[in-house]
Amino acid sequence: MTLKASERAMVPFVSVDNMMRLVHHIGIETFLADLAGEIERDFARWPLFDKTPRVGSHSDVGVIELMPTSDGQHYGFKYVNGHPKNMKEGLQTVTAFGVLSDVDTGYPMLFSEMTILTALRTGAMSAVATRHLARKDARTMAMIGNGAQSEFQCLAIKAVCGIDDIRLYDIDPAATRKCMANLEGLGFTITPCATPEEAIEGADVITVATADKDMQTILTDNMVGGGVHINAIGGDCPGKTELHRDIVARASVFVEYPPQTRIEGEIQQMPEDHPVTELWQVIDGTAKGRTSATEVTLFDGVGFAIEDFSALRYVHDKIAGTPFYIDLDLIADPDDPRDLFGMVRRSGASASWPKSA
Amino acid sequence: MTLKASERAMVPFVSVDNMMRLVHHIGIETFLADLAGEIERDFARWPLFDKTPRVGSHSDVGVIELMPTSDGQHYGFKYVNGHPKNMKEGLQTVTAFGVLSDVDTGYPMLFSEMTILTALRTGAMSAVATRHLARKDARTMAMIGNGAQSEFQCLAIKAVCGIDDIRLYDIDPAATRKCMANLEGLGFTITPCATPEEAIEGADVITVATADKDMQTILTDNMVGGGVHINAIGGDCPGKTELHRDIVARASVFVEYPPQTRIEGEIQQMPEDHPVTELWQVIDGTAKGRTSATEVTLFDGVGFAIEDFSALRYVHDKIAGTPFYIDLDLIADPDDPRDLFGMVRRSGASASWPKSA
Repeated sequence: MTLKASERAMVPFVSVDNMMRLVHHIGIETFLADLAGEIERDFARWPLFDKTPRVGSHSDVGVIELMPTSDGQHYGFKYVNGHPKNMKEGLQTVTAFGVLSDVDTGYPMLFSEMTILTALRTGAMSAVATRHLARKDARTMAMIGNGAQSEFQCLAIKAVCGIDDIRLYDIDPAATRKCMANLEGLGFTITPCATPEEAIEGADVITVATADKDMQTILTDNMVGGGVHINAIGGDCPGKTELHRDIVARASVFVEYPPQTRIEGEIQQMPEDHPVTELWQVIDGTAKGRTSATEVTLFDGVGFAIEDFSALRYVHDKIAGTPFYIDLDLIADPDDPRDLFGMVRRSGASASWPKSA
Repeated sequence: MTLKASERAMVPFVSVDNMMRLVHHIGIETFLADLAGEIERDFARWPLFDKTPRVGSHSDVGVIELMPTSDGQHYGFKYVNGHPKNMKEGLQTVTAFGVLSDVDTGYPMLFSEMTILTALRTGAMSAVATRHLARKDARTMAMIGNGAQSEFQCLAIKAVCGIDDIRLYDIDPAATRKCMANLEGLGFTITPCATPEEAIEGADVITVATADKDMQTILTDNMVGGGVHINAIGGDCPGKTELHRDIVARASVFVEYPPQTRIEGEIQQMPEDHPVTELWQVIDGTAKGRTSATEVTLFDGVGFAIEDFSALRYVHDKIAGTPFYIDLDLIADPDDPRDLFGMVRRSGASASWPKSA
């Protein structure tokens, strides 16, 4: 989209409703597979990106974070909150929105809901890690934690890795029933399980996405057999982990951005110099991924700004020519850029201006 | 506004057009005086705020910044760009928008244009500094730099300090003519001047707002007489200053947030330990402002997140019950907070879902 100055004053906005329409328009599995491709392309050019740990504002009940990044051509940031107590009040634990901008002018190009988009990109991210780290013959995934993220994880793994045999476990059986009902008719073989042990029996991939804001040991070391790939994505803030440290110690650990993961991820349990491999280096071929069929690989995912950037750019490209956005009058656009005040004053010519004179 | 969960999913949006309507509805001088009051109230409780230097992403042609802050009850951030070369392309050098959120839930409460609002709060901020630092008998202001910010400065100083005798100077006489035309009929006595020397002759307050991204010496030391108050607001990024360092050395310097001003303000020319007074301490009475009629006081203003916070909260309060906003469907709001996917899937019941199955 090449735009005239006055058109740049209008910023496309994708609402929650329009994001859902866009997902249905594209097809959710295609959307997830496309997103995985976009993330891989951006991870392959990782050194180009301006990287900052997220900027958080913490309170007793939650956190509000800004996650900016730029590839020199586009700039993106996401606003995201995390309030575990919200669920009891009927509110979302995590909500998000984001902006994509043109680095050359600083003008926003897209304002979008990102609660749904983050769920999609988080699924796509685990699928990217699984594609690069799991055994090629992996066919079964255990999904531990059947909350808001679980269906996105399952669909992304199916779309990207062809894994459609899913074993579900949640501490709350109602969550498992919800997840099963939501995935019905989408081409999965689903086995609900009564214990984590039962769920991971025979699983080649284990994805853990639980929500408690505490140090948990959802998985203990004796539960995890050789050759498994684990996506641990629920431990995403300080003081929140899901795996026993013996698993982390035994596994080969892959991360997004080490300075952030060492604070927020499973490896916050480990010494500061615990060896990790950056996933982007596996994707661009400069580091090894899995080296044997018996190795335990662990993707310690906490979510990074570049994934949101990939998602925003994808949405920006996809909405062109569709009815799935509206234009917001967000940027003041006086005819003479120095005459902002004149624009304001003239706009009131028919009103009671100057009221105070 | 106390809202039900489903109502919280809608976020009020104030567009450029609606911001102008709101300004006319309230009256611009009342708006500026109110904003000055809000800023003073927030500066008086400065220690309560979560303060972070702005988070910038720099390119060869400009910068995009995020400016967050919180008072523990509300959280606000502003997105603002600075692209000096934009003007030649018919675009704004600075555009901005911002968000106010509820710290308790992390949910956004307001999304607003801030290009106009930043211009207003920047005028109000200088007026606050002038009210606290200029001589009480100040009647004349020299406005050096007659660009996009100049009229807002003049109106705010008039609304807050009662100063209505204005002497204008700009290196470009067309800018001065534009400023004069814009202020016509608003109760000022205006004198256009051919040189900076002429403009500051007899001025009790000197406000400097020039836009060049270079070290400039718009004012030199011999030009500035005793007893003057200076607002230097154009030097707001590294490498951009407006005053000769001898003026800075001679003046009593007042700043917003020292860690930011030492990088971006006039005092970037001075040693790192150059003495400064934080303006909030003058406002809350714990530090002295002007101590004599011959002292030169300098407000080295670079703009700080708390000022934007004050402005966002003011707009949030003022739009209640007015038609000057629309509701955006920004927050995904499933009936069961854990059932984000179910909401997405059900929304496509009448569509071609699942497209890929």
